[in-house]
Amino acid sequence: MRLLTLAALALGSAPAAAEQAEPVAPKPMRRVAPALADYTDRLLFGDVWKRPELNPRDRSLVTITVLIAAGKSAPLASHLERALDNGVTPAEIGGTITHLAFYAGWPNAVSATEVADAVFTKRRIPASALQLARMAPLPVPGNDGERAATVERTVTAVSPSLAQLTNEPLFGDLWRRSDLSPRDRSLVTIVALTANGDAEQLGFHLQRGLENGLTEAQLGETMAHLAFYAGWPKAFSGTAAITKLKQKTPAQ
Amino acid sequence: MRLLTLAALALGSAPAAAEQAEPVAPKPMRRVAPALADYTDRLLFGDVWKRPELNPRDRSLVTITVLIAAGKSAPLASHLERALDNGVTPAEIGGTITHLAFYAGWPNAVSATEVADAVFTKRRIPASALQLARMAPLPVPGNDGERAATVERTVTAVSPSLAQLTNEPLFGDLWRRSDLSPRDRSLVTIVALTANGDAEQLGFHLQRGLENGLTEAQLGETMAHLAFYAGWPKAFSGTAAITKLKQKTPAQ
Amino acid sequence: MRLLTLAALALGSAPAAAEQAEPVAPKPMRRVAPALADYTDRLLFGDVWKRPELNPRDRSLVTITVLIAAGKSAPLASHLERALDNGVTPAEIGGTITHLAFYAGWPNAVSATEVADAVFTKRRIPASALQLARMAPLPVPGNDGERAATVERTVTAVSPSLAQLTNEPLFGDLWRRSDLSPRDRSLVTIVALTANGDAEQLGFHLQRGLENGLTEAQLGETMAHLAFYAGWPKAFSGTAAITKLKQKTPAQ
Repeated sequence: MRLLTLAALALGSAPAAAEQAEPVAPKPMRRVAPALADYTDRLLFGDVWKRPELNPRDRSLVTITVLIAAGKSAPLASHLERALDNGVTPAEIGGTITHLAFYAGWPNAVSATEVADAVFTKRRIPASALQLARMAPLPVPGNDGERAATVERTVTAVSPSLAQLTNEPLFGDLWRRSDLSPRDRSLVTIVALTANGDAEQLGFHLQRGLENGLTEAQLGETMAHLAFYAGWPKAFSGTAAITKLKQKTPAQ
Repeated sequence: MRLLTLAALALGSAPAAAEQAEPVAPKPMRRVAPALADYTDRLLFGDVWKRPELNPRDRSLVTITVLIAAGKSAPLASHLERALDNGVTPAEIGGTITHLAFYAGWPNAVSATEVADAVFTKRRIPASALQLARMAPLPVPGNDGERAATVERTVTAVSPSLAQLTNEPLFGDLWRRSDLSPRDRSLVTIVALTANGDAEQLGFHLQRGLENGLTEAQLGETMAHLAFYAGWPKAFSGTAAITKLKQKTPAQ
Repeated sequence: MRLLTLAALALGSAPAAAEQAEPVAPKPMRRVAPALADYTDRLLFGDVWKRPELNPRDRSLVTITVLIAAGKSAPLASHLERALDNGVTPAEIGGTITHLAFYAGWPNAVSATEVADAVFTKRRIPASALQLARMAPLPVPGNDGERAATVERTVTAVSPSLAQLTNEPLFGDLWRRSDLSPRDRSLVTIVALTANGDAEQLGFHLQRGLENGLTEAQLGETMAHLAFYAGWPKAFSGTAAITKLKQKTPAQ
């Protein structure tokens, strides 16, 4: 039953029969590409989603991040439901979409709010679950001066506007919101950068992710998981960025 | 009223009440991601779109270029209306779509023609506004021999077909069309390359854009604007490409 | 008649009048962007698709690969029909979609199965054309140890899971399936990497493609063809990767 839900969710269709016990790839896939249906059932749902190196909540957060960041609305509804089942809260989903507006562009975030609104309405999630009480901003990280200095050195001369927007709304406000933990915010950022091929910014955010509590093992498994949703090449480039970071900081 | 239109346009939905005076993020966004609605109203429409470093017409041209080049059809209709309000002509929209067929692929351009056709029909824009009189091609830039020599050196041996298509239809014909000014054509090209992560070609086109009359300040502000529509990482990579160009030509 | 079908297919719309003899760009394009309609009829269908350096079957395989890998569902139906007309078999289409699940992500492949199912149903293609008899896996290439050693050296330490998935399901199983010839599988892979900007992995797959029987001339013409479907910048980056490979192996 749970497995069926998983398969149905991943494929964006409702389960045909709730009592079925095994994941079932949808009929069009089974007809057109039977080998893909097999990989879906046995490899993706039967194996990868169950690997212990990353828990189901994190796998759901990684999956919805790829789908939102890459603008894949069709399978998003069912993966948002799966994410809620796996313990991602409605406020965290709202926080993820807000964060991704900045990291993957407004159009992808706007589409995601429409899909999420339909899912939340269907599940009768009250607005109170989403309207955060006025929260105190999280403290600024100790090494933020270094980050700001890099922006000053590399961005200000070319685009004073982008530098200001990066220092104030982005790092001074968005990153200090408490609707996502810093660890989850880093995970979402790393996944979005990897899925969208934004390798240039990955080194900084991998480092920040480790500082925010992600482990190297989780980062490595994140790449294996997102290979299925963003494609193998993106996962390989993400892995190469982790390798590069480790070579810079050999003592870790 | 104007602000409301702006917000509604950006979000691809009709204004709920024409008499409302302030930009209003759409209801699904307000429910699911209230912080994002706030950023949309106060930061994106209340601040960025009004910054003087780039006029509203250029901001519209940048925005529709990102949406067409990245294949985001959903918000395109309302941004095309906004672009018309901001002074982009129907012929320039047609020219932009034609140009982006080459720089972002036919499928994105074909989708855009369908959206634009609906907008033009709704606004009763006559075909005469789009059917250009037979125009004389613009002159070939003085340094085109250098460009052709680079293609000869880097492309011809591998793909004679691509070299011929680049020299004849692309630079010999498309770039000499007068439905977009060379300055706007460069702007559209730079934005498309940046939004789609095509950094390898950016150096050449930034240089050409400066030759065609874009200023460094406009290029920098373009990156700040497109950060919101294509995501921060693309804007940072675009900014890095401008920095690199400036380092090559320190006297500028 | 054939040309008309070609144009209609490429643009995702049914031919208006079957007896028309010349390719016709769709009406919305002709109204909104008449120059683009002209390029479509005269350059893309009237010239590029007919160039002898790549046969129509290969051009179709390249085109559907770009559309699936880049998630462009709208024009896919008509190009799948064109591919069937040009000699790509239903089993090869299923094999291409399955392959691209790994190289461009599950969401794009799932969307493609829905489009293909509709096309196959319309054409009454029997399930027997798709359900492959249990086939013996193709032999492992002689130099697979070298590939596995690279994965061991570059991936295993960071993501043991991704390394295992790469060695076993990907290269040990998917690449040994006989629903695509190794030559076609390489072509599909190279096109997907190029269209999605995954340049880091392109060197390895170009080399493998040559080993699997693709010629340098076919690879060069593939870049010219995909320029129209994935945009010029991707084609230029793909061409640069071929140049780089040739410089490494000057004797070839």
